Amino acid sequence: MKTKEQILLETIENATLEEIIELSEELHPVDLLEALQDYEGNSKDLLDKFPDEYIAMVIDEAELDEKYEILSLFPQKQKQEIISEMSSDELADMLGTIDEESQRNLLDGMEEDYREEMEELLSYSPETAGGLMATEYIAVKESMSIDETLKFLRDISPNAETPYYIYVTDDHKVLKGIVPIRSILISEPKALVKDVMVQNVTTIPIDMDQEEVSNLFQKYGYMAMPVVDSDQILMGVITLDDIIEVMSDEHTEDLYRLAGLDEEEEVDGTILDSIKSRLPWLIVNLGTAMLASTVVRLFDDTIGKVVALAVFMPIVAGMGGNAGTQTLTLIVRGIALGEIDFENKKEILKKESLVGLIHGVILGLIVALIAGLWEQNLVFGFVIGAAMLLNMVIAALAGFFIPLLLKKLNIDPALASSVFVTTMTDVLGFSIFLGLATVLIRYLI
Amino acid sequence: MKTKEQILLETIENATLEEIIELSEELHPVDLLEALQDYEGNSKDLLDKFPDEYIAMVIDEAELDEKYEILSLFPQKQKQEIISEMSSDELADMLGTIDEESQRNLLDGMEEDYREEMEELLSYSPETAGGLMATEYIAVKESMSIDETLKFLRDISPNAETPYYIYVTDDHKVLKGIVPIRSILISEPKALVKDVMVQNVTTIPIDMDQEEVSNLFQKYGYMAMPVVDSDQILMGVITLDDIIEVMSDEHTEDLYRLAGLDEEEEVDGTILDSIKSRLPWLIVNLGTAMLASTVVRLFDDTIGKVVALAVFMPIVAGMGGNAGTQTLTLIVRGIALGEIDFENKKEILKKESLVGLIHGVILGLIVALIAGLWEQNLVFGFVIGAAMLLNMVIAALAGFFIPLLLKKLNIDPALASSVFVTTMTDVLGFSIFLGLATVLIRYLI
Repeated sequence: MKTKEQILLETIENATLEEIIELSEELHPVDLLEALQDYEGNSKDLLDKFPDEYIAMVIDEAELDEKYEILSLFPQKQKQEIISEMSSDELADMLGTIDEESQRNLLDGMEEDYREEMEELLSYSPETAGGLMATEYIAVKESMSIDETLKFLRDISPNAETPYYIYVTDDHKVLKGIVPIRSILISEPKALVKDVMVQNVTTIPIDMDQEEVSNLFQKYGYMAMPVVDSDQILMGVITLDDIIEVMSDEHTEDLYRLAGLDEEEEVDGTILDSIKSRLPWLIVNLGTAMLASTVVRLFDDTIGKVVALAVFMPIVAGMGGNAGTQTLTLIVRGIALGEIDFENKKEILKKESLVGLIHGVILGLIVALIAGLWEQNLVFGFVIGAAMLLNMVIAALAGFFIPLLLKKLNIDPALASSVFVTTMTDVLGFSIFLGLATVLIRYLI
Repeated sequence: MKTKEQILLETIENATLEEIIELSEELHPVDLLEALQDYEGNSKDLLDKFPDEYIAMVIDEAELDEKYEILSLFPQKQKQEIISEMSSDELADMLGTIDEESQRNLLDGMEEDYREEMEELLSYSPETAGGLMATEYIAVKESMSIDETLKFLRDISPNAETPYYIYVTDDHKVLKGIVPIRSILISEPKALVKDVMVQNVTTIPIDMDQEEVSNLFQKYGYMAMPVVDSDQILMGVITLDDIIEVMSDEHTEDLYRLAGLDEEEEVDGTILDSIKSRLPWLIVNLGTAMLASTVVRLFDDTIGKVVALAVFMPIVAGMGGNAGTQTLTLIVRGIALGEIDFENKKEILKKESLVGLIHGVILGLIVALIAGLWEQNLVFGFVIGAAMLLNMVIAALAGFFIPLLLKKLNIDPALASSVFVTTMTDVLGFSIFLGLATVLIRYLI
């Protein structure tokens, strides 16, 4: 049986020009991209059946590392046609990933105005508002009427970045207000833009970090927000669908960093990329594990006398690591969501310490009981129980303070936090457990 | 100095009715909500200065557990006025969280049509398309002209859920197509809806899980998508800002489940909630740690003879757990993003195994060297090196297979994966390390 994708590809292969035009109005470029992935014919010939405007949309939708791959299929002149139809934000992202010569070639082929715009977009860091924004927006003057605005819209026939808001600027491009699309639709034709516009606009500074931009969008729920420079001059627009990508990327980054993976690693990447991503962390971990080993080594005499200590070492380390990771994850997520501030920090610390203490008492008692019965030695039960109790509190404190300290040092709290936390619980947990055993050794043999 | 919030609150306290009307057009309800959090006066009196429509917007924006808290401030009659202005999806969410009697009271006070609609919304599971959608949408007929559509829009003056698309339905409410708002703005007034509408609409089945809905939005980048039943009857609309919340919740769930936290736990929650969320996982972990201990116990004779084995145990366990978590996290995220399918599964397994093997060789050699020198015993170096090598491969296999197995059993792959993975690496790692040492014991003493 043929798949949906195969049917689509065959339809395209056999389509007349007219049918293609019709198809390109109905077919989402993402679906064509997906079908192309398994296409065994010549992708260029297939894409070439579509108008350049549609090819531009396909490239707009492609993953960052595929964009230029698709564009390269076409001759230089057609390349220029295609990129002139691309969204400015996607084009800037693509230009940012290619070698300098290809970039220069494409820029040189652009019309001067657009080239200058693109060079400006390229100058912003990709992870800031400037790197996210598109420069396609619709601006009108305060003195225009709704009817004039509608005529103006029909004339310029906006595409690509759908206009959810119309921006109102003065002669110096300073943002004066915005008109939501619904106001245009429902206002009387004779009303003036200045009467229907919203003046108190939440704007995004051009150098704001993308995570903060994303938080603003999540807070207010707007479909698009204007980006301004320090003089309130309108520079571009960020739309909610860009934020969806930012959120997904930031999520991946959080998860990966907590696990000791480079955020660039891909699940279907190469072996070399995986090793580059993970080996450094494993080596850091080897270093911290050695630290724990060194602690154990300090007490090898004691272990030689009471081998049961070695038997219970995995419990001390494992439980401490897990409890620490719980608190750590909660704090890292709370920081990312902006839920931890100066005021509730103390409350959270108090809560986490108490939770650690209560867990320590409960788990300490259970472990003490099991170990005491197993080894037929009450003091042994006391030693492991006390170590468990203290290690649970240490886990809570480490899980709380380490990410907040990293945040204070302007390091991503997710980065390497878990390595530090488990090092703390391992080193201190073993020290307490084996130290206590050494002090009480005469009751253990 | 006064904060922004204090200034806002004072402005409201002293505002005339006229000033309030003006303010409510410019002030985002989220900003009022934020200011209210630290308000020392009477919230009800302050909110009561605003029209009911604005109070409804404030409740729409409030967190789920705060919505009814705010609504309860008002007398029954005003409650009904306020909820009649709320978004249908937010109202249904709120009704779903309150006790049966209060719910019944509010439902009974509604107009019949809306009550039936609300009862239907309440019947859908909150984590499906039906639970996410709102029922406010604008539907027109194919035969209408653009000019008629514009007049119609002016008449009904849509609010709340901004219309990004107009839906085209037949007499039986079957979805025939959609008209993007930009088509309305730029089409000739005389054009007919059926000429400008898009027919090939991607629809969402009403029982689709929210994670899949979120993936569809991320794939296509639409601002809103229609929800239909099995007869293609238009039931409601989901907008991208709802998806933002879903994404954030799903991400918290992933992170929390990987760390052994209940997804309902909040960073500023109570001690009791934290213990309920975490203690069960810690006890599961205690069980699996006991398993590892039992393995160690099997070899206590060997450890008694070669205490250095206990010194290197933390390295075997720690490295295995970390490498396993790396693979696990990559696979869990890949599953969530839909990046792992039947075809590339084998490729990924091959890659992960090879990465594990290469890491094993590199780290095995390093550890063998260090341990061999430290203990002045080549065989000891060989034992720990070989255990490290094999444990890295085990970590890769466990990190790969466990989440995929859970997925196959329809269990969230993030749930408990890390417990299983570290149990595997601990139990098998210790078995290999201590087992090998037992076999080669005469070269170690």
